[in-house]
Amino acid sequence: MEPGTVRPGGRTARVRAAVLEAAGDVLAEQGFAHLDLAEVARRAEVGKTTLYRRWGTVTALVTDLLEDMAEQSVPRTETGALLGDLTANARLVRRTLTDARQGPLFKAVIAAATCDERTAAALRRFYEVRIEEWEPCARQAVERGEIPAGTDTREVIRAVSAPLYYRFLLDGGLLDDEAAVRAAGAACAAAKAGAFTTDTARPRSSDR
Amino acid sequence: MEPGTVRPGGRTARVRAAVLEAAGDVLAEQGFAHLDLAEVARRAEVGKTTLYRRWGTVTALVTDLLEDMAEQSVPRTETGALLGDLTANARLVRRTLTDARQGPLFKAVIAAATCDERTAAALRRFYEVRIEEWEPCARQAVERGEIPAGTDTREVIRAVSAPLYYRFLLDGGLLDDEAAVRAAGAACAAAKAGAFTTDTARPRSSDR
Repeated sequence: MEPGTVRPGGRTARVRAAVLEAAGDVLAEQGFAHLDLAEVARRAEVGKTTLYRRWGTVTALVTDLLEDMAEQSVPRTETGALLGDLTANARLVRRTLTDARQGPLFKAVIAAATCDERTAAALRRFYEVRIEEWEPCARQAVERGEIPAGTDTREVIRAVSAPLYYRFLLDGGLLDDEAAVRAAGAACAAAKAGAFTTDTARPRSSDR
Repeated sequence: MEPGTVRPGGRTARVRAAVLEAAGDVLAEQGFAHLDLAEVARRAEVGKTTLYRRWGTVTALVTDLLEDMAEQSVPRTETGALLGDLTANARLVRRTLTDARQGPLFKAVIAAATCDERTAAALRRFYEVRIEEWEPCARQAVERGEIPAGTDTREVIRAVSAPLYYRFLLDGGLLDDEAAVRAAGAACAAAKAGAFTTDTARPRSSDR
């Protein structure tokens, strides 16, 4: 091995996994304002020096956590119909937001992103990866003729998440299965009605 | 006057207006974490003692600010058709979120609500008042037969806001007029397709 390279799955990877798990735990329990690198080091059973050398700041640590979460994104479901695919997506989002650890973790990271540009960029990247993973559901619906050509397929996927995040962050509405089913149904109906076609429309191979 | 009562528009009302304006300015400029009662008092040109006696904590001050914002809610527009009404609503939400003072102020308050239950309750109340103001647009659409009986009319209004807040808080998408028009169009199309009818409601004319 070259000096400075790292075996995959070696010590560096193990340290990262332990540190990110501890960081996620502290964020979920105490929020962004109380995230303390020394406490993360203690919980991860990693030397403070190692942690400071590798991440340096709370922001860098949260950014790395979001990158890791994006990488672990769950593969999309294929049911053969847009409504089925979008319902699977809505249920996944709902599960994440109502999860005892993930829910508070997302709240903490979203709060941090409102006042820190690096965290905001990492959060945008996280959602880009998620949307990218599920976008083929809408693209295949165009190909099957379920929804119009010229549909902004990424926007269809975002439309599934939006009402669930609205409840999660703003109005405190119940995030039950009915909410997920309804979010998927509304996005599907709007897509079928052509509400997500772009003005400049097609063929629009890619996005912004 | 009874002891302890206050003339409307009197000194107490002027102090409150000055303090809430200063609090909003500081929140918009510096975020919730840096909201300092002493600085608010200085900017409002109000004695610190008055401010501490009346509000006591940052949370109480933010809660009062949200109540004031809810009271100042802009009256709804009536265009005679659901799409027109929802588009007016979407443009109002978009204007608020992109406003140089209101945008950062909303971000600060939403961030605060993620880690403080009193602020979260005040935020929920704020959205309740907003939704209540615009709900008749959807109710009248039911009466006109534009959308099915049994539609959850509040949910139609929330559906207009949701994609705009999603861009605002999460994915950093452009909040341009096209985004507002699209949000209204999607909510309207979904409502017409029956996507917001409640299970308990009846006759569910359409499928999805």
